[in-house]
Amino acid sequence: MPVQIRHKTPFTLSKPRALVVAVPPMHSNVNLSRIVRAAGCCGVRKIICCGNASVNAKIARETGIDLEIEPHRTLSPELIRKWREKGWRIVGLEQTDRSFWLHEYAFPEKTFLVVGNERLGILPEILRELDDVVEIPMYGLPFSHNAATATAIAMYEYCRQHRN
Amino acid sequence: MPVQIRHKTPFTLSKPRALVVAVPPMHSNVNLSRIVRAAGCCGVRKIICCGNASVNAKIARETGIDLEIEPHRTLSPELIRKWREKGWRIVGLEQTDRSFWLHEYAFPEKTFLVVGNERLGILPEILRELDDVVEIPMYGLPFSHNAATATAIAMYEYCRQHRN
Repeated sequence: MPVQIRHKTPFTLSKPRALVVAVPPMHSNVNLSRIVRAAGCCGVRKIICCGNASVNAKIARETGIDLEIEPHRTLSPELIRKWREKGWRIVGLEQTDRSFWLHEYAFPEKTFLVVGNERLGILPEILRELDDVVEIPMYGLPFSHNAATATAIAMYEYCRQHRN
Repeated sequence: MPVQIRHKTPFTLSKPRALVVAVPPMHSNVNLSRIVRAAGCCGVRKIICCGNASVNAKIARETGIDLEIEPHRTLSPELIRKWREKGWRIVGLEQTDRSFWLHEYAFPEKTFLVVGNERLGILPEILRELDDVVEIPMYGLPFSHNAATATAIAMYEYCRQHRN
């Protein structure tokens, strides 16, 4: 029979994950903390967070020194443009009229993933800055995932494609 | 620019999802409720839950009448065997010495997905009943996803493989 192994040694990546996750001001720091935990598991090195962001260590757990949380007042178009200029593809996670299905989208290695606020999603001023938009297919009510759940799924899909 | 479309019409499946999710007694009804919401989005028709399970509608949202939540006192080996006899493959989500990587495992259509308790994971008496075990690759601290996050990722992977 299978035997549980808690906290297995993780994969060693041949180079640091080139996935940056940008989180706008969130309604709930619980959701932000859940994103931080999932990002740590995915080997993400940088999360950009905004506003009154505060990570709850009980939820986020120990994510280690490899994951940097970079605070900003807001998620501004200027910030996004700086990342694009450095060669990152700006990919939003949002239900829109032109989103790719998450499982069909080929993530560039250098992905700057923008996620949405729980209630407002990605604001129009940020939507216009995106290179691409992806969304998770829905098969039933309530027709949308929790924001942190959706972010974790998107990071999983990125990792599935980039196993290096 | 992309325009938000909240609560898009979901995919219509050509036949009901043959994915059943079995949730053991959980430490937190918040996690159960999050699993229920994600299951609804995935078109899952049945969740088996145990113990003092109570779904928080604020977290689970409206999952509709298509998703049946079947309560049991415990998740017993007998219950699992009944599902196997009806032709379902019993797949556990757990870090073990013989787990397949989630993204490499080909889910049979009729999958009975057993998830673990937040602290204890899947108990040995259930581990011995599994046909297969899958786990999500880890690339960093804290080396394990939250139980509800992991379940949502596993359901997403199943849906990615079974789009019918």
